Amino acid sequence: MSARIRIAVDAMSGDLGPRVAICAAQNFIAHFQDVDVLLVGDESRLLPFISPKTISSGRISVHHAATIVAMGDDPLHALRRKKDSSMWLSLTRLRDGAADACVSAGNTGALLAMSKFLVKSFPGLDRPAICKPMPVEKGLTFMLDLGANVNCTPMQLHQFAVMGSVLAKAKGLESPRIALLNIGAEEQKGTEVLQQARELLTADSDINYSGFVEANSIFSGDVDVIVCDGFHGNIALKASEGVARFIQKKIAKTAKKNLFNKFMAMLAWPLLRQMRDELDPSFYNGASLLGLQKPVIKSHGNANSAAFFRALTVAREQVIQQIPALIEKKFNLNIPPKREE
Amino acid sequence: MSARIRIAVDAMSGDLGPRVAICAAQNFIAHFQDVDVLLVGDESRLLPFISPKTISSGRISVHHAATIVAMGDDPLHALRRKKDSSMWLSLTRLRDGAADACVSAGNTGALLAMSKFLVKSFPGLDRPAICKPMPVEKGLTFMLDLGANVNCTPMQLHQFAVMGSVLAKAKGLESPRIALLNIGAEEQKGTEVLQQARELLTADSDINYSGFVEANSIFSGDVDVIVCDGFHGNIALKASEGVARFIQKKIAKTAKKNLFNKFMAMLAWPLLRQMRDELDPSFYNGASLLGLQKPVIKSHGNANSAAFFRALTVAREQVIQQIPALIEKKFNLNIPPKREE
Repeated sequence: MSARIRIAVDAMSGDLGPRVAICAAQNFIAHFQDVDVLLVGDESRLLPFISPKTISSGRISVHHAATIVAMGDDPLHALRRKKDSSMWLSLTRLRDGAADACVSAGNTGALLAMSKFLVKSFPGLDRPAICKPMPVEKGLTFMLDLGANVNCTPMQLHQFAVMGSVLAKAKGLESPRIALLNIGAEEQKGTEVLQQARELLTADSDINYSGFVEANSIFSGDVDVIVCDGFHGNIALKASEGVARFIQKKIAKTAKKNLFNKFMAMLAWPLLRQMRDELDPSFYNGASLLGLQKPVIKSHGNANSAAFFRALTVAREQVIQQIPALIEKKFNLNIPPKREE
Repeated sequence: MSARIRIAVDAMSGDLGPRVAICAAQNFIAHFQDVDVLLVGDESRLLPFISPKTISSGRISVHHAATIVAMGDDPLHALRRKKDSSMWLSLTRLRDGAADACVSAGNTGALLAMSKFLVKSFPGLDRPAICKPMPVEKGLTFMLDLGANVNCTPMQLHQFAVMGSVLAKAKGLESPRIALLNIGAEEQKGTEVLQQARELLTADSDINYSGFVEANSIFSGDVDVIVCDGFHGNIALKASEGVARFIQKKIAKTAKKNLFNKFMAMLAWPLLRQMRDELDPSFYNGASLLGLQKPVIKSHGNANSAAFFRALTVAREQVIQQIPALIEKKFNLNIPPKREE
């Protein structure tokens, strides 16, 4: 890692176009003096929105990529055919040591496949897991996997627990409480895989295993890391997002229902706005692809520039905290020698 | 079915004690003139709260049960040992034709096991599925299974689709849109079981199959029935409940944060109360155990009396709509001859 932190940004990814990433990057370098950003994408669509002064300062540079990975692209097709895409070229910058972390708001499957191919996961870790901090009653709870692995073995769940624990410790928790997501808190509940994972976690003295939790306890903040397979994690995360959006719409609708409500809503507008902001999932944007040899961060596809800023923050933190190195150490694995940086 | 509708109520079930069921039953018979309620439970704890006039009218009767099934009881243990419990005796009333439906807020696993043993599922249907209407942006969406079956075969998911369709049609929908819960909307996504279920649903001309939906679309109201295995359904339902509770707490906390917010909240109190009520999951209380030969309704364990009232409403509707007979017809199955009623 060089003295300055360099983040490669797949600027063409995301549903809202490249201006989101550009705007976020400009705010980000203004806010963090130790970071430079490499925007990767169609030069003709990026350069017009960046001031010559910023470019000449060198803190934001633009690297041309001719194509993009579309949200609907098949990951394997993208892996084989899209070697001139902004996603691929961002990840090659990371691989080659020209960047210390990579952020993309693009196709999750393609990002996983390309990351695994270019950045490599640690030997012994089959596929990276997607990990995200969830806002809960008391702080944040890390949850993984959120969709990278449809079916998991007990050993994979154990690896997720170890990686989640590393992330939580880097946040300052001394002995993070780790739980397995299940459909009941009782010991005998759930599938054979969960039963075996429970045994592995109980036997690991490095893990502060807190038992099974049900999905309604995700938001209580009683545990620090929740481990699950990617199918279950994806359902829990997406259902949560769906409810939050549903409730926000409901609040807006209630406030507009009749003249009296409109008047009330006007009076209470500062309060309502505060609530809306606190419920905004974009504040928690930025999922980590854990298990890779360098930090790769997935931003939400429809993240606005504030949310993308948040994903950049996660990338910066992971470089500073050296999360991949901590995970490597934990597994005591030998990584093949790195390229010269 | 007799001319009047008789609902057997496991009055001792639920976390809040028998007064919830008693209060709900009294309001219910006042509201619906065609219903009588059989309260099953400890006479000494039930009778003091019911007026002699109500008892003498015969519209509420009390049937003694010496024990209860505890929330933590192992379902199989309960099935074998708790034959003097309020749950068991409520279900025997239903089995014997002394009641037309049964409502319990007790241990879900025990209720499933006892229902299957006493009320029987239709031949060919392995285990009942738990189905609940979810409040969504446009009306309600039925979701099943919500936790009765941890692993499901493609054929079971197909059966759930048929049963869900029956329930949605009884609500007045001509051709309910049926979807399978998955981690992506694309056809090739998900597990082998989901792929096979998709083929079965596509091939069934009686089913209006709408494809896969992700969990964040549960609340959009774009489909009428969402089919999933019990593990996934349970996670989606509980995560949703968790978020709703989290947000309610957050609203309350924001409103109390400082003097200014307190003042604002006071001003907007009618609006905030309205929101709180609209978010209250108790309004949607009452899950159906579909696939049984008679209606059995599960109320939420911590339902208050308004929520329990709602579960009684579901029971009444299912008797009137003859849901079990409609399901039987759909499967074209032969039920063993019923006892004389």
